[in-house]
Amino acid sequence: MTDQTTELLVCIKCKRGTEVAEDGERPGQALLDALSIRDLPAGIRLTPAECLQNCDHGCSVALRGGPEKWTYVYGNLHEASHLDTLVEGAALYHDTADGLIPWRTRPEHFKRNCIARIPPLRAPVPNLKG
Amino acid sequence: MTDQTTELLVCIKCKRGTEVAEDGERPGQALLDALSIRDLPAGIRLTPAECLQNCDHGCSVALRGGPEKWTYVYGNLHEASHLDTLVEGAALYHDTADGLIPWRTRPEHFKRNCIARIPPLRAPVPNLKG
Repeated sequence: MTDQTTELLVCIKCKRGTEVAEDGERPGQALLDALSIRDLPAGIRLTPAECLQNCDHGCSVALRGGPEKWTYVYGNLHEASHLDTLVEGAALYHDTADGLIPWRTRPEHFKRNCIARIPPLRAPVPNLKG
Repeated sequence: MTDQTTELLVCIKCKRGTEVAEDGERPGQALLDALSIRDLPAGIRLTPAECLQNCDHGCSVALRGGPEKWTYVYGNLHEASHLDTLVEGAALYHDTADGLIPWRTRPEHFKRNCIARIPPLRAPVPNLKG
């Protein structure tokens, strides 16, 4: 468990390979909108982001949670079918100390659609007990 | 120009789709080793990283430079052919305030092999002068 806020960053520029009219809503914005009316677990903040540059495999989100956690980028997300996955995954991420959701509880979509991850800013304190 | 150290994180676990013998050196480790004997510009710190999970498009690095900069992940890198690009790109990144290397000076490999990017931790102060 962690006291640090978890950010669920959603790329709102994503077109997911579709043609979007000049005044049309982009799939990335639709994903943000759909998440914004969900009850998110305590400690999770939904944040719009400019292009995450995962354009070939959008829609995209990132999960970030303070200097001791890995940051994860996930792709191939859809505003209709992946809301439960994202809410569940964000909660699981939030409950970790280092950002690593154990494999057995990791959402299936996360297992197969991790685009990249970034190490924690702060290296973990070595466990001297071995 | 920034005073904040720039981290050039290199995924040392990368096999780049090759078969690596149990006791053989991985391409990611070779990339780190090759960079470690280069003269890096002031302000740039080379850091080994565990798997960046960009395994389909390795080798991989990330550039990170403090709370006001975007973090970038680049892929499809080779320990023999991309050392100059990485040193040049890290220096250009270091010299920006927000991590965005202007397109015209961005190394060609960076233009076509950005895997993802993560927004700055700290939002920029709005320019009230418009």
